[in-house]
Amino acid sequence: MLRISVLGCGRIGRMHADNIAAHPRAELVGVFDVYAPSAEEVSGKHGVINFNAAEDVFASSDVDAVLIATPTPTHVNFIEMGVNAGKAILCEKPIDLSTQRVNELKERIDGTDVPIMLGFVRRFDPGHAVARQALLDGEIGELHQVVITSRDPGMSPDAYVESSGGIFRDMTIHDLDLARFMLGEEVTTVTAHGARLVDPALMEKCDDFDTAVVTLVTASGKQAIITNSRKAVYGYDQRVELFGSGGMAISENHSENRMTKHLAAATNVSAPLKHFFIERYSAAFNAEIDHFVDAVETGADVPVGFEDGRLALLLADACFKSIAEARTIRINEMG
Amino acid sequence: MLRISVLGCGRIGRMHADNIAAHPRAELVGVFDVYAPSAEEVSGKHGVINFNAAEDVFASSDVDAVLIATPTPTHVNFIEMGVNAGKAILCEKPIDLSTQRVNELKERIDGTDVPIMLGFVRRFDPGHAVARQALLDGEIGELHQVVITSRDPGMSPDAYVESSGGIFRDMTIHDLDLARFMLGEEVTTVTAHGARLVDPALMEKCDDFDTAVVTLVTASGKQAIITNSRKAVYGYDQRVELFGSGGMAISENHSENRMTKHLAAATNVSAPLKHFFIERYSAAFNAEIDHFVDAVETGADVPVGFEDGRLALLLADACFKSIAEARTIRINEMG
Amino acid sequence: MLRISVLGCGRIGRMHADNIAAHPRAELVGVFDVYAPSAEEVSGKHGVINFNAAEDVFASSDVDAVLIATPTPTHVNFIEMGVNAGKAILCEKPIDLSTQRVNELKERIDGTDVPIMLGFVRRFDPGHAVARQALLDGEIGELHQVVITSRDPGMSPDAYVESSGGIFRDMTIHDLDLARFMLGEEVTTVTAHGARLVDPALMEKCDDFDTAVVTLVTASGKQAIITNSRKAVYGYDQRVELFGSGGMAISENHSENRMTKHLAAATNVSAPLKHFFIERYSAAFNAEIDHFVDAVETGADVPVGFEDGRLALLLADACFKSIAEARTIRINEMG
Amino acid sequence: MLRISVLGCGRIGRMHADNIAAHPRAELVGVFDVYAPSAEEVSGKHGVINFNAAEDVFASSDVDAVLIATPTPTHVNFIEMGVNAGKAILCEKPIDLSTQRVNELKERIDGTDVPIMLGFVRRFDPGHAVARQALLDGEIGELHQVVITSRDPGMSPDAYVESSGGIFRDMTIHDLDLARFMLGEEVTTVTAHGARLVDPALMEKCDDFDTAVVTLVTASGKQAIITNSRKAVYGYDQRVELFGSGGMAISENHSENRMTKHLAAATNVSAPLKHFFIERYSAAFNAEIDHFVDAVETGADVPVGFEDGRLALLLADACFKSIAEARTIRINEMG
Repeated sequence: MLRISVLGCGRIGRMHADNIAAHPRAELVGVFDVYAPSAEEVSGKHGVINFNAAEDVFASSDVDAVLIATPTPTHVNFIEMGVNAGKAILCEKPIDLSTQRVNELKERIDGTDVPIMLGFVRRFDPGHAVARQALLDGEIGELHQVVITSRDPGMSPDAYVESSGGIFRDMTIHDLDLARFMLGEEVTTVTAHGARLVDPALMEKCDDFDTAVVTLVTASGKQAIITNSRKAVYGYDQRVELFGSGGMAISENHSENRMTKHLAAATNVSAPLKHFFIERYSAAFNAEIDHFVDAVETGADVPVGFEDGRLALLLADACFKSIAEARTIRINEMG
Repeated sequence: MLRISVLGCGRIGRMHADNIAAHPRAELVGVFDVYAPSAEEVSGKHGVINFNAAEDVFASSDVDAVLIATPTPTHVNFIEMGVNAGKAILCEKPIDLSTQRVNELKERIDGTDVPIMLGFVRRFDPGHAVARQALLDGEIGELHQVVITSRDPGMSPDAYVESSGGIFRDMTIHDLDLARFMLGEEVTTVTAHGARLVDPALMEKCDDFDTAVVTLVTASGKQAIITNSRKAVYGYDQRVELFGSGGMAISENHSENRMTKHLAAATNVSAPLKHFFIERYSAAFNAEIDHFVDAVETGADVPVGFEDGRLALLLADACFKSIAEARTIRINEMG
Repeated sequence: MLRISVLGCGRIGRMHADNIAAHPRAELVGVFDVYAPSAEEVSGKHGVINFNAAEDVFASSDVDAVLIATPTPTHVNFIEMGVNAGKAILCEKPIDLSTQRVNELKERIDGTDVPIMLGFVRRFDPGHAVARQALLDGEIGELHQVVITSRDPGMSPDAYVESSGGIFRDMTIHDLDLARFMLGEEVTTVTAHGARLVDPALMEKCDDFDTAVVTLVTASGKQAIITNSRKAVYGYDQRVELFGSGGMAISENHSENRMTKHLAAATNVSAPLKHFFIERYSAAFNAEIDHFVDAVETGADVPVGFEDGRLALLLADACFKSIAEARTIRINEMG
Repeated sequence: MLRISVLGCGRIGRMHADNIAAHPRAELVGVFDVYAPSAEEVSGKHGVINFNAAEDVFASSDVDAVLIATPTPTHVNFIEMGVNAGKAILCEKPIDLSTQRVNELKERIDGTDVPIMLGFVRRFDPGHAVARQALLDGEIGELHQVVITSRDPGMSPDAYVESSGGIFRDMTIHDLDLARFMLGEEVTTVTAHGARLVDPALMEKCDDFDTAVVTLVTASGKQAIITNSRKAVYGYDQRVELFGSGGMAISENHSENRMTKHLAAATNVSAPLKHFFIERYSAAFNAEIDHFVDAVETGADVPVGFEDGRLALLLADACFKSIAEARTIRINEMG
């Protein structure tokens, strides 16, 4: 049993706590949140320790691993504390909004053998995973294009959007990681376009975008195209298409249920897509914990590492730069 | 070139005339209709003979074959005239509403080598045909169940319904033939249920049904289930499911177009099904002519013969008898 | 918190135990199984009482309700013990294979206010439920036909089949209940057909069928058609179609995942259907517990009662009788 | 009746000749092809004039309109001859491979009132058209993104590819026009990426690409994303997605038939997509003729004019420039 504590008892932290508690080879041993009522609620529900401070979590001999679900600015510090304390880490994305801070952390923890896994949950979605497996099994030949459609069901609260680091570091970063994962080779150039169509005033204020397209190209010429919007009224639009010399595999959207209506005005009328990311990716969040426990227990490499987190951030930076300069950015320009 | 004349210039006759005129190996040479304006319109459009009488059609040395699209009560006579004149016949279903008349005709024309093909057009539908081909190719193993859903988009005019011979001889007869075609062995028992739910008053008046279920069983135990309604508001519902020991093949419905909408209230919103049988089965009507021309030109057996028309009528009779007696009817009770 | 004990720690009992343990308003307090190792495993996993005898469960003041997941022949006795002890009951279907025993039990427990709920889980399937809701909301007008396709992914072990009471009491009983639920009015006639196509030798030996069709009709003429097979190689085929004057609602099948492949030979290639009933109906099994807890806690009627269990069994009996006599059976002939 | 002659009796010319001949308000009066046997075949089939020279077509008083389906380099000249002769023109795309020649022609024919329609057939596809209609009807709100997937079923012959003007002037030009049509406002920037993955040697030789992505942006920020490949083994992949503030409309792919198979290894197995563009867009080609006849007869503007052809070519030029300079091209740089 891997004994895990959860830092951060917000929406995502609570979900992770539930998943860990239900996992057959993991044990939820404690939680921490600077906002005491949240931590009390979760520790009470599961009958586990409510730590007084994050430091206590890392100091506890009852804790093997720490899941970091606190606000982004705390991630770098907590990862470093985990490395120093020898606690395996599963950290929500992104590592940080500043590539410089991430690079500095990278230098400080270089060579550590403490497992650090990044929470790019979409890699573990069953539909996305079997699409990739079809590719690996040669069923669709050589990969030529990865087409990711990724649209949120609605805008996050203004305050969240304003401190999110911008669409590419907040939303698209998931897709950038997924594209890297599917492409199977490193991205060499990034081209991005951004528009302000959903909430122009807010986007103007944040110097951000709510509608975006990103094209990634690898050294061998493979292309990945990401289409983003912050608001799809029909639900959480999450499709991945792998196009190759031998065919195509598509991970399709998820409706709320499997009922269709056939009426005078229209047929095949189906439910909206699942709206909430926790609901849409619930199987993936469970599989993520599973992979983490596996890797830590067996000593295998974690399936998504610190460097994956750093590279996705670099790609996000390149998106902003591409728009600012209206040109294609070579990734090796990004330092 | 097979030189064909069309008897009957109503909706179906006109469509057949167009299809024959456009067929590369057939030639429309003339038409006849007791209602002169209809015949004039079609003969004028195609620049072909407007015969004065049906007798003239059968007497003409310019005519190789006759397509009979006149009202049902005339079919028996015209088929016999065709046999006597040595003109190949393609006759719309049913042969007649009276099994006795059909049996008498059978005796009179027994042994003829004049090709007589029945217009059970659904056998030629591309979707139904490839489903059957999958069965013949062994892709779905041994056949166990045939499930036919067949619902009209709306009631025919009252006058038509009243003289139609009842739902089983009018609508279901297509499905009864299709079931025989798919089962690949003769039906031994028939059980039917009828209800009056769409237009109870009219059905009461005609001693008919607008909603029906029929179960056919063969000697080896294969089952065919037919589900009928005279009115499906979403369009012409025409599905065929072949279920076997090795899998299932389904010939699915046809929407008016291939556009889907994804909205706040519903996703995958598609057009209604094609409503009109001529539109829904347009490819099948063309293929029917093609098969007829092929059979006549090569001397091969027609793909749907007189006996198929007679047996479908026998099954329809058995449906009414099954309801009247609330029991399963053995086909050999039907004489 | 409703304190529930589970009788029977086989496959279904274990699943129910897990679901109860995870339910926010229920508490798993104990289990019992005549086969000690199974009971030990489940009680150990959840840290609950391993009762020495079923009698102890009903006698315990720590138990509010009992879920009966033991072999069918024990159900009648356990239900009666529950009624006598005042413990709410959730009993797996069927109540018994003998209508006489069920009728006798009915007389003995008549007038009890102890909640007795039957485990017809399909009523709680989200897809089936929203289809029914569309009907209740008037979206598809007046109901005319209910079409249930229900095919198992494979044969149960011979020993199970031999003692199952036959396909109609074992498999179809779920569909018979679901048809009653959807029809919304009582069935007045039953007509059934059975065939031996999947495993003729075994079916011959058991005097049973592996392939079946059932037609139910209500007083107002509504029709329900059930199509069964004991083996669908493509998975657990579970579809429900509600056809009405204003449209149609279909609860569609569930694939293992949402990935499609598009290859030179075929497009839209999807995963097989979920094979295992616990996986296919997992949401329904959870909802079933939820409804049970709700009803017991609020004192409302249980959503599926003892009489529903008895009537489904009566319909199953009528199916056998219909086949034996090759006729439609009026339900009031069934006593 | 609009009397039309067809220049060019290759694959496309023959199809247009058939469609014109079958059109109720058009008449095929003659054909011309420099390769006599082709012209003879088509004129013989339809019993129309086989003109000795293109000049004779334009000089004939029996000709109201000319459909130009000859090789691209002849288009400019034939359009000009049509204008001078006062014959309405329907010209296959592209006008020419040289923007300079097109611009020069534009100057020479400026102010003409002879109808000149460009054969961007996809505008007339029923699925694409109803998707656009949903947009115009406000069903999907304000348009934000147009996503066009356009992949050929296989490489054209090497000789054709080598003289095609490159993927953007040959294939993508259809998508560029369709994007303009759907966007409803002019494109202001173009960014393209090209790769050589299907046939690298040939692409290297032609300095061309077989795999491409194009992003178009309008002044108001609307985005169009085009994904191209010269070879999709599963057939002719032609999808159009309109994403807006109120929802999404998708014109989906067309399978060869509507049959699905459900097997042990996979469910929903469907036929490959229609492979041949004439088959896939057959309804669109017919509608194109219809719109042309309508416009000429009523004197209304043609639905796709010379300027549309010129602008699509300009966008294609911008694609090549974007790749060469690895940057986003402003359309007003293109002169």
